[in-house]
Amino acid sequence: MLDLHKAYFADHVKKLQDQITNKIREIDPEIEIIEDCWNREDAAGNEGGGGITRAFSGEVFENAGVNTSLVYGKADPEFIKRIGGTKDEFWATGISLIIHPKNPKVPTVHANFRMIQVEEKFWFGGGADLTPFYPHVEDFKFFHQTWKDALEPYGHYEAWKKKCDEYFVNKHRNNEMRGIGGFFFDHFNTGDIEKDVAMIQDISTYFNDSYFPIVEKRKDEAYTSEDEDFQLHRRGRYVEFNLLHDRGTHFGLQSNGRVDSILISLPARCKYTYRYAPAAGSAHEQMLKYYYPQNWA
Amino acid sequence: MLDLHKAYFADHVKKLQDQITNKIREIDPEIEIIEDCWNREDAAGNEGGGGITRAFSGEVFENAGVNTSLVYGKADPEFIKRIGGTKDEFWATGISLIIHPKNPKVPTVHANFRMIQVEEKFWFGGGADLTPFYPHVEDFKFFHQTWKDALEPYGHYEAWKKKCDEYFVNKHRNNEMRGIGGFFFDHFNTGDIEKDVAMIQDISTYFNDSYFPIVEKRKDEAYTSEDEDFQLHRRGRYVEFNLLHDRGTHFGLQSNGRVDSILISLPARCKYTYRYAPAAGSAHEQMLKYYYPQNWA
Repeated sequence: MLDLHKAYFADHVKKLQDQITNKIREIDPEIEIIEDCWNREDAAGNEGGGGITRAFSGEVFENAGVNTSLVYGKADPEFIKRIGGTKDEFWATGISLIIHPKNPKVPTVHANFRMIQVEEKFWFGGGADLTPFYPHVEDFKFFHQTWKDALEPYGHYEAWKKKCDEYFVNKHRNNEMRGIGGFFFDHFNTGDIEKDVAMIQDISTYFNDSYFPIVEKRKDEAYTSEDEDFQLHRRGRYVEFNLLHDRGTHFGLQSNGRVDSILISLPARCKYTYRYAPAAGSAHEQMLKYYYPQNWA
Repeated sequence: MLDLHKAYFADHVKKLQDQITNKIREIDPEIEIIEDCWNREDAAGNEGGGGITRAFSGEVFENAGVNTSLVYGKADPEFIKRIGGTKDEFWATGISLIIHPKNPKVPTVHANFRMIQVEEKFWFGGGADLTPFYPHVEDFKFFHQTWKDALEPYGHYEAWKKKCDEYFVNKHRNNEMRGIGGFFFDHFNTGDIEKDVAMIQDISTYFNDSYFPIVEKRKDEAYTSEDEDFQLHRRGRYVEFNLLHDRGTHFGLQSNGRVDSILISLPARCKYTYRYAPAAGSAHEQMLKYYYPQNWA
């Protein structure tokens, strides 16, 4: 039965990849897409599986990545220990995506959903979080409300929203968050795999509804060079989080993951300026106060 | 006697900061300079000292930082362990600098020289390394030859050049170096503090001669948008090294160092592109093969 649910979840993940890809293409019809199918099989048979990486580069979406993978084999002992296993074999599948729009009025978004299995144990993890660059508070509320609608029937909104607020934090920047949060969960199961797969599948399908309406609303809004400058500096903080703090990035790189697929999360362009601060009284200065935990829904 | 040598080295470090600052100003007369003097004294008296951060932003030098600090007090137990001490007090002074020129024909450079003391023990560390973006091989030879001239009389060139090749490496990028090396040393002493201070002082004074002649030679060279694109992507790799691998950056952030002074090392602008590769047959493609250990002098 476990194998059946694994196959079902793996299939769902790929469908989700296509649904998100289609939506991106619908909004940005001329977008350039590079699709790379890679496999991690080695001669010794210790590593199996592979993935589909889709890299986007367009007018609305300056750069984006929507990746899936299904990998299995002998695992790094440290990884097995981390997830509470004893044998050295694992199986995992998931989707991971990041979208960096060009227009600073449109927020950056990240999401991922994954299932990991070791022996007869299995876990789920994932989440979605938004990184806006302009204080369109209604968009923040919309994003959080959509995920609240998705999670509340299962009783997870409050706890997983809090986990997100605690995770996507630049500790070295006085605990400023990289964005305005969303939800995050890890190492999750109820023990009932059928129920868990159904729930994660259900939740994950809210992604398109949580994000693309904001894109469609904001993508043609005028913006100034100051708006862009603020966005590029915040993208710099995004890079700081991903390279200094993100466990997924570190694990991926340490376990010899496919570097280009992992670092697809980095923005096409970013800026760093000594003691950067937006102009006093600007919308950007106002935005800074939103990068801390708040109740948005 | 130890105190006398410490004071002498601390004084040297500040003089070096001024010499390098003067040279930057001479080449880029309109450059904007922000000087921040900071102190780390706390109410409990556990932390003392401070530093002088100089941040530059100009036409020739897009962004640069030339920092000194002299800090002492109760140290993080992990830090004390790392440097082999037993008591929980330390003293340290040093200069750390990074220069990111705007013209891609001019290499980026980094250098630092530091002295650490715990009880009656003391150590030195530091080095200098070059990150060029164009295959001007004669410049690489010039940089390495200058440091060879500085280090060879003391018998350190070969070993410290090798340490540099091993340190400034993006392990996650198939061991590509962030530049073409230079020299690097850590945890060094001969036991004779007078001799050691004199040597580090002597070596460090070669910095201006190792770098600025290259700047003066290349700063007005024409460059293309492809040259700049390659530079901005290599600056992206620079950020990857500094945030993923650099022990100094990690230690600084973990020990609640002054964030703006530490991350002054990041370039003003950088780029990331999925599977970025320079054009086949271009000078940039040729440059890629130089980012691996080679004998330049």
